[in-house]
Amino acid sequence: MIPISEKMLELGEKSSVIREIFEYGNRRRAEIGAENVFDFSLGNPSVPAPPEVNAAIRELLDGDAVSVHGYTSAPGDMNTRRAVAEYLCKTHGASLKAENIYMTCGAAASLTATLNAICVPGDEVIALAPFFPEYRVFAEKAGAVLVAVKCREHDMQIDVSALDAAINCKTKAIIINSPNNPTGVVYPEETIKEISNILKKRSAEYGKPIYIIADEPYRELVYDGHVKVPFIPNYYDETVVCYSFSKSLSLPGERIGYVAVGDKCTEWKRLFAAICGAGRSLGFVCAPSLFQKIVPKCLGKTADISIYKKNRDILVGALTKYGYYVIRADGAFYLFVKSPEADAAAFCEKAKKYELLLVPSDSFSFPGYVRIAYCVGTDMIERSLPAFEALAKEYGLK
Amino acid sequence: MIPISEKMLELGEKSSVIREIFEYGNRRRAEIGAENVFDFSLGNPSVPAPPEVNAAIRELLDGDAVSVHGYTSAPGDMNTRRAVAEYLCKTHGASLKAENIYMTCGAAASLTATLNAICVPGDEVIALAPFFPEYRVFAEKAGAVLVAVKCREHDMQIDVSALDAAINCKTKAIIINSPNNPTGVVYPEETIKEISNILKKRSAEYGKPIYIIADEPYRELVYDGHVKVPFIPNYYDETVVCYSFSKSLSLPGERIGYVAVGDKCTEWKRLFAAICGAGRSLGFVCAPSLFQKIVPKCLGKTADISIYKKNRDILVGALTKYGYYVIRADGAFYLFVKSPEADAAAFCEKAKKYELLLVPSDSFSFPGYVRIAYCVGTDMIERSLPAFEALAKEYGLK
Repeated sequence: MIPISEKMLELGEKSSVIREIFEYGNRRRAEIGAENVFDFSLGNPSVPAPPEVNAAIRELLDGDAVSVHGYTSAPGDMNTRRAVAEYLCKTHGASLKAENIYMTCGAAASLTATLNAICVPGDEVIALAPFFPEYRVFAEKAGAVLVAVKCREHDMQIDVSALDAAINCKTKAIIINSPNNPTGVVYPEETIKEISNILKKRSAEYGKPIYIIADEPYRELVYDGHVKVPFIPNYYDETVVCYSFSKSLSLPGERIGYVAVGDKCTEWKRLFAAICGAGRSLGFVCAPSLFQKIVPKCLGKTADISIYKKNRDILVGALTKYGYYVIRADGAFYLFVKSPEADAAAFCEKAKKYELLLVPSDSFSFPGYVRIAYCVGTDMIERSLPAFEALAKEYGLK
Repeated sequence: MIPISEKMLELGEKSSVIREIFEYGNRRRAEIGAENVFDFSLGNPSVPAPPEVNAAIRELLDGDAVSVHGYTSAPGDMNTRRAVAEYLCKTHGASLKAENIYMTCGAAASLTATLNAICVPGDEVIALAPFFPEYRVFAEKAGAVLVAVKCREHDMQIDVSALDAAINCKTKAIIINSPNNPTGVVYPEETIKEISNILKKRSAEYGKPIYIIADEPYRELVYDGHVKVPFIPNYYDETVVCYSFSKSLSLPGERIGYVAVGDKCTEWKRLFAAICGAGRSLGFVCAPSLFQKIVPKCLGKTADISIYKKNRDILVGALTKYGYYVIRADGAFYLFVKSPEADAAAFCEKAKKYELLLVPSDSFSFPGYVRIAYCVGTDMIERSLPAFEALAKEYGLK
């Protein structure tokens, strides 16, 4: 066997569960026709980018022929960084300037740059289960140990006392992802305040900041006017915001996002420099230039998320009626549904008989549930309902 | 002091020498007018992308509105990977299929994914000085030690016996960058054959492959018909090609490139999987989607490199006439010129009096020279010649 990195090999060889289900779906689509397969496996936006995106691209292509595709400085195009900062000030009452913004190749890059900047060997990073499986990959590559703290099962809200109990002198950061993948849950202001108070106390106790990494690719995907997604830096100074335009602008393949480090972070300039240094060492030269430059023209725009709202409402209504236990989902485009048997993978196998492709929650570090990604066509959802109903009947749910 | 990664902080805080010179240039341009500053500091293409690039973008924007900006699979869009493989087969007689190609966010990402895949702690990676300073950053982040082997001073060709002497049981890979940054040198077939023979012998001796990492962003930038850039996998099986379209298509800011791992690499599927795994752990989800999709339409096209050839010819002719010692440069867009005094930084300071902005070679791990990046307007080069001449006279070069 060639003596290469076993860890990297394992990451490359271990096909993700989600990917396997998607590949199974491809085979079934070929066998029985795409319209007969109800594939809820992938969190891939199904709504096109808002028209402003392609209009901005066309406009840029008509401009300076060299600079449009040229290098920007490593932290990003100054005009873009300024526009992002101004947008965050205006929208959230933040206090940010261009100097606080580092443009990245999407949320994954935002997270890896941040984690590699702040972590030293032996550090612990807390994630709130269920969570996006790559958090573990990113934290471990940064030399940290990922510590999972389970959410409260009945509503998948943060169990604040369990979080408090998990913090120790090795805790470097807590990743908060709201609206959440895979649950769709939004953490309310009250929870953010409670966590902030705990972290302030604990940071003082240990004499060093414990960071909140606010992973916010779904920030704009909330469907009811009364639901607010708190802007965490307004509550807790030691917050690093990791954002991506993948979901809000339906640009997941283009890899464009940012990190925001506010002036109130302790030694914020050093923290910011370390994030830039980490990005450099990981091989991120600059965020894609053309897509950096569309950002100022598209801030505040979103893809047509009313489609996701409609999908959610149809599914939540129907699944609840059929007897499934559905976690209240105020945002993102996921439903988290309790498996009628303890083994969610076994449930997903049975669901396949009805051509329903669901993702068991085990890979999100919270067994016993399934994730339903509803970023699909509304017509598919409507066609899938009898299958969900028949599956519920098989389990005698109602 | 906040307990974050000192290494990443240092990388982020230590402004590169090149960047400092460029910033100095900005100040001088503001003070005395852009036309009076002769800035040869940055390797930033000055020639626009070929028209096929923007035409392909416009065509893609008219196509499917969701998939154009959607995720591709992690190793890349299958159509793009197939097109790259076919192009390499046709152009270099390679034996590659889509499965051998991993699309990346540019050459830096190609290198970091490869280095993080193959390196384990204690490994050594050899770079041939002078070399691109980020090689050290990338190798060290991957847990390896970078070992510099100096080229022969009179022509900056590889000192094959010095290379042989530097190889030991810890050697994991040798980075070969041809055409070279910062020298512009192309390594001829004979040298590649000699190195291949050495590496075959040494790999057999140690019972494990020693890789060549062929870093080839400048492959197409050669200016004389008789100069060939050997395609290294044709000579040595254990070669990983790291390519970028930054220079050939003048798309440096868009971050698009690839890694090619041929079937003849030992256990190539495991090696390829580890590279994909490393890319994943570093935060590269997929290469930018729109730019992946233009690749099949632009393979074999280049920006108008005749401008670079013209620049090179003017500069080499003039500098030689003024008495400078100029390394023979067959490719890339750099000249490597001997400093008339031992301290290249002191020489660069004197050059500033004539508004000439040159980069001392120390940061390329080969003191005593300066790098002149001639990817600038021909008019600036012509205006700069009296300054080069006056500077030569100050040193009594001729």
